[in-house]
Order: sequence, then structure tokens, then C-alpha cells
Amino acid sequence: MNIPATTNPRIVIIGGGFAGIALAKKLRNQKLQVVLLDKHNYHTFQPLLYQVATGGLEAGSIAYPIRKVIQHYKDFYFRLTSVKEIDTENQKIISEIGDLHYDYLVIATGSKTNYFGNKEIERNAMSMKTIPQSLNIRSLILENFEQAVILKDEAEKNALMNFVLVGAGPTGVELAGALAEMKKAILQKDYPDLNIDKMQINLIQGDDRVLSAMSEKSSKAAEEFLLKLGVKIWKNLRVTNYDGRTITTNTEVTFESATVIWTAGVQGAKVAGLKAESLVARVERIRVNEFNLVKGYDTIFAIGDIASMESEKYPQGHPMMAQPAMQQGELLGENIVRLLHKKEMKPFEYNDKGSMATIGRNLAVVDLPHYHFNGVFAWFVWMFVHLFSLIGFKNKAVVFLNWLYNYIWFDREGRLIIRPYKKKSFTTFTSDEI
Amino acid sequence: MNIPATTNPRIVIIGGGFAGIALAKKLRNQKLQVVLLDKHNYHTFQPLLYQVATGGLEAGSIAYPIRKVIQHYKDFYFRLTSVKEIDTENQKIISEIGDLHYDYLVIATGSKTNYFGNKEIERNAMSMKTIPQSLNIRSLILENFEQAVILKDEAEKNALMNFVLVGAGPTGVELAGALAEMKKAILQKDYPDLNIDKMQINLIQGDDRVLSAMSEKSSKAAEEFLLKLGVKIWKNLRVTNYDGRTITTNTEVTFESATVIWTAGVQGAKVAGLKAESLVARVERIRVNEFNLVKGYDTIFAIGDIASMESEKYPQGHPMMAQPAMQQGELLGENIVRLLHKKEMKPFEYNDKGSMATIGRNLAVVDLPHYHFNGVFAWFVWMFVHLFSLIGFKNKAVVFLNWLYNYIWFDREGRLIIRPYKKKSFTTFTSDEI
Repeated sequence: MNIPATTNPRIVIIGGGFAGIALAKKLRNQKLQVVLLDKHNYHTFQPLLYQVATGGLEAGSIAYPIRKVIQHYKDFYFRLTSVKEIDTENQKIISEIGDLHYDYLVIATGSKTNYFGNKEIERNAMSMKTIPQSLNIRSLILENFEQAVILKDEAEKNALMNFVLVGAGPTGVELAGALAEMKKAILQKDYPDLNIDKMQINLIQGDDRVLSAMSEKSSKAAEEFLLKLGVKIWKNLRVTNYDGRTITTNTEVTFESATVIWTAGVQGAKVAGLKAESLVARVERIRVNEFNLVKGYDTIFAIGDIASMESEKYPQGHPMMAQPAMQQGELLGENIVRLLHKKEMKPFEYNDKGSMATIGRNLAVVDLPHYHFNGVFAWFVWMFVHLFSLIGFKNKAVVFLNWLYNYIWFDREGRLIIRPYKKKSFTTFTSDEI
Repeated sequence: MNIPATTNPRIVIIGGGFAGIALAKKLRNQKLQVVLLDKHNYHTFQPLLYQVATGGLEAGSIAYPIRKVIQHYKDFYFRLTSVKEIDTENQKIISEIGDLHYDYLVIATGSKTNYFGNKEIERNAMSMKTIPQSLNIRSLILENFEQAVILKDEAEKNALMNFVLVGAGPTGVELAGALAEMKKAILQKDYPDLNIDKMQINLIQGDDRVLSAMSEKSSKAAEEFLLKLGVKIWKNLRVTNYDGRTITTNTEVTFESATVIWTAGVQGAKVAGLKAESLVARVERIRVNEFNLVKGYDTIFAIGDIASMESEKYPQGHPMMAQPAMQQGELLGENIVRLLHKKEMKPFEYNDKGSMATIGRNLAVVDLPHYHFNGVFAWFVWMFVHLFSLIGFKNKAVVFLNWLYNYIWFDREGRLIIRPYKKKSFTTFTSDEI
């Protein structure tokens, strides 16, 4: 890996997500050598991935080069690689580009889509956790319409225009709303020779309300907003399979669709090499104590989505979201500095600032700890918070400009098919004229 | 292809580049059915591709959805496909998505990179004619540096940091300048553990000056600017081969490089099915008369780079650039309307407004018909002209914002490796530590 030898303790951080970047910032210019590893060379602002997928924003606007974050930090290294295994005995990580010894290791690998073991769904459904995946979804949506326009068979056309989102958490709800707006803002205008009324957006939820992690008031408002935008909500329905064409469920309901986007669950993006007792097998997270120290180790920490810090208030760990990740990253940074100065570490306490979701133009829901509200003001709050959470002045400016443009002109200009994406399993389509 | 039957004449346009779009705009809302075909769903503003390749602009800013251009045009259809062949006898085109009859056909397929028959160069060198190709170059540049940083072998490191551009026309010159600025703006800051002085930018030209299509004054100024930026210029040197690692030339000079970008020539992107007498074999362009009518046919036109209209002033046809393409597209649009009204067509005459190239910050050269100038003012003229030539208000605004940001901060934020690009032939690299 070509990292210079050092007499300072070496901290290796795996992952440049919200947790890893927050930690990196706190560790700058300390008596430490820090090595940050990620399989992408950029940090992704995941809460806005759905806008990249639906053409509202360009990928570059919601990503930030990791090397730029650490540009001015001393004895600080970035390496583009993924980690294959941790050799805890010899205190080293084994990566695609070589091994590296650590004095302290911080696992901040985040989460990935959870298909609950269904390989066929995994093969055929789309996932939306990374920028390349979002660009794939965007290309697929537009390719579906380009395909539908040349077909005469109504059933085929309808399957291409039927979008099924499985899981009505924030990602599913926001994507459903954005798709509904894309229908009006782009698809209706761009495809005048298609009957766009046939385009369906089906949002499937396993239990009895959307945004079930939020307040009942917000769930109710979100459902109203979604219905207003024409999204069809299916509650208490569980998807059992998807062969690339037909979705089967636990009831008699089935769907014919070329595009299933799976937002029904996440699991830890685990790294091999830890003892079984350190893991929560069900969700593949890593068990940590209140200092984010991994159970069973004294030089390995885990933060963010991958870390499960079980407490009375959070018996299954904190929610897998940006807020706890950033807070854990920051505190761990301070705690590592404390460790260096032989001071005692501070236990983590999650400061839940609330949660929010946007459904569409002027439509959002916000849950503060003691107050829930929705509508236009909630939407402004949502925009403000997301704009200011983006890293970098230029990203903020470009996103703001895009939102302003999209708002005024009811438009989305990001409609480039730059990653032609063909679903392998959906090859039954042929043009009538070939 | 599912195009409705019509009693109006049907015009089929192949290609949505400068020529095709200029024509489409002129044909809007006439007593015609127009079908526009392209293998991309967007129009590319090719003069700025080099900025996408070097991280100055996002791909979305220099592309424009074709469907958006034609959104409000009546009896106007777009189909995403490439054309396999023209069946001139039956007046139909044969495409990937079916056949289509035409009353008039307009070939506006543009140009592609010309490797002059050298398959090994074609396999190993990069080309920069499309947005995906530019994104590949960007990814490759950044991947080279990520790779160089983990290596200890100096020869390997140097080959990864050695960029060779073959052909010093506008594309080669602009890309060389942008790479030189990228070196200072990004690479030097992002890779403090590399000796960036070792990064080389070699610009190779077959004859005795760069920008040989421009005035001698501009060539001289461009060379000065390039030298100032640290670009190494090789004149009267011809590349004979590139195996993915070593470039050989017609002299004893060789280069070791992981990245060769080939801008040494273009040729027509021809379509099969035309008679041999209609073609200029050497450059694969299509011979047209002064009305852009293809020699030997009376219902097939060709415009833009693909069309070779030989005249006294332009014995080998017009230069393969945006200006003649747009002018031909516009005039043909007017001429087709004249045809409809049984009026006589007007012959094409190229209005050469001049040409320009930018080398870097405050450094550009401009040739007007009777006046040549360079430096800061030329650079402002270049920016102004390019900004206003972009389609769409948002693209203009976003590009302006990016340029302003890049100018003020000496930065380029587009450094996302989103299309991991591995040169197959360059696999000799291994990390010292693996």
C-alpha cells in the first residue's frame, strides 16, 4: 500500500461515508497517522440518491472527492481499495492492494441492501445505495420508455411503465414521490405518443403504514401526499419473488413490471475476520459498546450503520441513518484524541434531532422530538437541512440552482442514458416490426 | 418502430449532433412528418468534452436531452437506435429496432476517431468523441494516480503519470492544456505523496506546427502557451504503434505510457447501403452537391461532418467542425421547406466565422477571417462564444457557475471515478506489497 512507516500510532478507517468522514475531520493534524480506505474515491450524500435516479440532480452534485476533504491534513493517507479481511491477531487488514498494519482500526463500512436471502429478487431487482446504482436506475427508467414507445403490445408496454418499489421507508417514499413528479415533469412531455396515464407507481409496504419509523401523524400525511401524486400504496403486503417480469406476493396480488426497486431493508456491509460473538447475525451489524469499541477487541472500533450499539432506549442499536453515524464519527474522533492523551473516553449518547422525508413539490413531513409538522413549511425545512448538509460550496450552489430551476420550470434535465443498463432477465421484449 | 402512418412526406434524420439538431429545429411544425434517430438520447456539445474528461464540468452540463428539443414539435418523433443499413431501392432504413420508410433521408451521423487502420492503437488508445468516452478518460486519469500512489517502482509510476496525446489539432491542444491545469489544480494537491513533477504531458504532432488548420500566429501563440503550462510538444513526429505500454514512432523516440489519447484524426461515421460512387473512401465521408444532396440519389441528403461538399475553396470538403454542420443543417431545413412549396433550393455557402482554441486560464487563440489575436481577451471571447452556444438556460448557468468556481479556486471538483475503467492491456502493474 506504500504507506510510510511512522512512530505515531496508525489509525486505519475503512469507509468514507458519513461516519468515516466525520471521524477523519476530527483526527486531522493530531499526533497520529491516519489511513482512510474506501472502494470509491468520493463520499456519497446518500439522502439525495433518489434525485439522481429520477433526473433531478447530477451525480457530481451529491458526491465529494475524499482526497479533497483530507488535502491539507498532515500524515493522512487515502487509498482506493476494498478490504477483504481483518487479521485481528496480527493487527492488520488485508486489502486488494496489499496488507496494512494498524494500531487502531475503525470499521465504518456502512450498510448494503438486504434481500433477506432471496437470490432471485437480488438478481432481478434494482438497488439504490450507491451513485452507480442510482445512475443505473435512471438509465433503466428512460430505457423502459424508449422501449415502450416502439411496442404495440399493450401488456408489454404496461409492464415497462409499471414501477414497483418494495419498502415504504424514507427511501421508498421519496423515490415514489420523485417518480410521480418525473411522470408529470418529464415523461408526459417527452413521450406524447405513449399513454402516460398507464404509468403506475406501486409502493409496497409489509406492515400497516408508510414511514413506520416516523410518527403516525407523519405517516398519515405522507400517505395523503403520495395518493395526491398518484402513487398506489399497498399495505400489509409482502413480496415473495420477482423473476424479472412478475412479482408475486404473500396474497393473490401480483404485478407485471420491468422495474422493481428494492428498498425494503438494509444490512451491515460486514468485513470478514471478526469473531462470531462480535456480530449480530440477523442484520450483519457489529456489536459495539458505548465507546463504539467492538465487543471482544480493544483496538477495533465500529461506527455508523455497521455498528450496533444496543441500549435500553435502542435495544437493536441506533437507526441506520446519517445522524447517528456522524455523531458516532465525531465522538470517536474526540475519544481517540483522549486516548492519546491518556484521558478517559466519553460514552456515546445519540442526540435524536428528528427525521424527515420529502414526497414532492411543497410536500414533506418532519418529526422533531416533540413536534410533528408537514406541508410547505416542512418542505422548506427539508430543503434547507439537506442543502446545508452537503459538503462543499459548489455542490450547495449547483444543487440549489437545480432545485430552483426544477421548481420554476417543472422540469428535470438529467435524462442522459450514459450507463445503458439492460436487465438480463427481461429479454422477452421485441419490437413488433423486427 | 411504431411511427404512425401519415399522408405528409416523411423525413428521417439519422443523428442528433449539431447538423441534425439545427435541421430538426428548422423543420418544426411544417407539413411534414419528421423522425429523428440517434444512438444516444441526448445531444452532445462536443467542443467541451475535454473539460468533462479533465474534471472541469459534469457530463450533464454539456449534453441536452433530444426529446426536450422536439417536445413541442408536431408530428415529430425521436427513436433511440442505431441504423444498420439504408435500403435505397425501397427507400427505407434498417435499424436495430425495425425498418422505416422515408420520403427523404438525411444522414447526419457525424464523425468518429480515425486510427488509420492501426488496430493495436485502436485497442489500446483512448478516444474522446462521446460523453461515455470522456468519462472513461477521466476515470482512467484518476485511476492511474490511485495506482501510482501504491507503487514503489519508479518506472511504473512514471508510465502511469505519462500522458501522451497524439494529434495537436484543437482537441489535442485543448486537452493538453486542460491536463496541465488539472496537474496543478487537482493532482498536485490530491496526491502529496507522489512527485507530481514526474507527470508528463506529451503532445505529438505529425507536421511542423500545432493547430495547423489555424493561422501561423495562433499556432505560435498556442505553442508558447502550452510550453508555459509545461506541455512537451513533439513536432514532425508520427506514432507508429502503441501496445498499451510503449509508444513507438517513426524516429528513435519512444514513450512509456499508460494513457494515450488519440486525437490525430477523424473520419465519417458512415452508414452501409450507399453506392461506392457516393463515398470518399479515404475519409469515409459522403459526397454531396451544393444542396447537400448525396451524389447519385435524389431523396438522400447528408450534412455535417459526414458530408463532403467539394468546391474550389474547399477541395476536400468543409472542415469537420460544428460551424459548417450547423449552417448546413439550417440551410437544408429551409431547402426542404422550399422543396415542399415547389420552390428552388439555395446552394450552400460556408460562412467561416473563424476558429478558436483555449489552452488554459487566460490563454486562448482566436482566428477571425481578417484578424488573429490571443491571450486574455481571446480567452474571454472563447468562453462567451461557448457559453452561449450551449443549448438550454440551465446548462449555461451551471457551466458558468463551474467556470467561475474553477477560476476563483483553481480547482476542478469533477473527480468521481464512476465508470471504473481498466485498460486490459496494462495489467503488468502489481502493488509491491501484494
